[in-house]
Amino acid sequence: MVILGFDPGLATLGYGVIEKDEKGNCRAIDCGIVQTPKGESLAVRLCMLEQAINQIIEKFKPNEIAMEELFFAKNVKTALSVAHARGVLILCCNKACGRIFEYTPLQIKQSLTGYGRADKKQMQKMVKMLLNLNKVPSPDDAADALAVALTHARVNKLGEHFII
Amino acid sequence: MVILGFDPGLATLGYGVIEKDEKGNCRAIDCGIVQTPKGESLAVRLCMLEQAINQIIEKFKPNEIAMEELFFAKNVKTALSVAHARGVLILCCNKACGRIFEYTPLQIKQSLTGYGRADKKQMQKMVKMLLNLNKVPSPDDAADALAVALTHARVNKLGEHFII
Repeated sequence: MVILGFDPGLATLGYGVIEKDEKGNCRAIDCGIVQTPKGESLAVRLCMLEQAINQIIEKFKPNEIAMEELFFAKNVKTALSVAHARGVLILCCNKACGRIFEYTPLQIKQSLTGYGRADKKQMQKMVKMLLNLNKVPSPDDAADALAVALTHARVNKLGEHFII
Repeated sequence: MVILGFDPGLATLGYGVIEKDEKGNCRAIDCGIVQTPKGESLAVRLCMLEQAINQIIEKFKPNEIAMEELFFAKNVKTALSVAHARGVLILCCNKACGRIFEYTPLQIKQSLTGYGRADKKQMQKMVKMLLNLNKVPSPDDAADALAVALTHARVNKLGEHFII
């Protein structure tokens, strides 16, 4: 089964693709980021995101898609711009796949490290280890996207689903 | 020129269509709302919105589109769900029209009543008067959408543009 993970964002959207075999073992297929220029209008940036997301889905044909839940912390303005991008992301995913799951940062940390307060470095090390990679995936948003895909692969094992 | 106004929302999206002649006089063409059921998933609701928005744009073929700026006030959760819907709305508008303008609630109130603290009733009366309607348009979200379309028609007269 191919799982596509997304770390939603307007300026930078991370994606990570993994394949889970029947035994539950995972291997990385690809990861990367999509960026939209800050100088462009919101409308143009959302259209650029849509095109890129559709290309990623078309290329990897995921069976299931997982993404980070929008976690509102400090910066409301940033959260609102992420939410605009996330609306477009969910739209594209649902039109192509229909099996979309979301996980909170806490769920992702607990699933990968067993510890809800793990820092970014610990998380990236676990992604590297669980996927048998030679080095930590980069940039950060791509690693985060692999982490949410892995979370879905592991949580799903236990039969726990969190569909959007 | 046909101006399509939107009052963005996930549960209820208002739209209002007006035509402005060369002298700047406006007449109402249509207004209404699109609703998505609270029991459905976010993904399904965003897809329903996309379909409805595309149908409205296809039907009225606007030259320009105006919408309310997302105003974050009290409820962050509501603002985030509106932002998801607004991302889809802006995407659809930009793909079809490319001329999208946004106005703050303050700009809309000042443009229609000359007074930034006008209440909902005063605003609706002005929409009725400016469009020579027999009665106040309803529901509220449809009236709000006509108000933003009227704002665009009036602000544009003065050469002030606020493109997204």
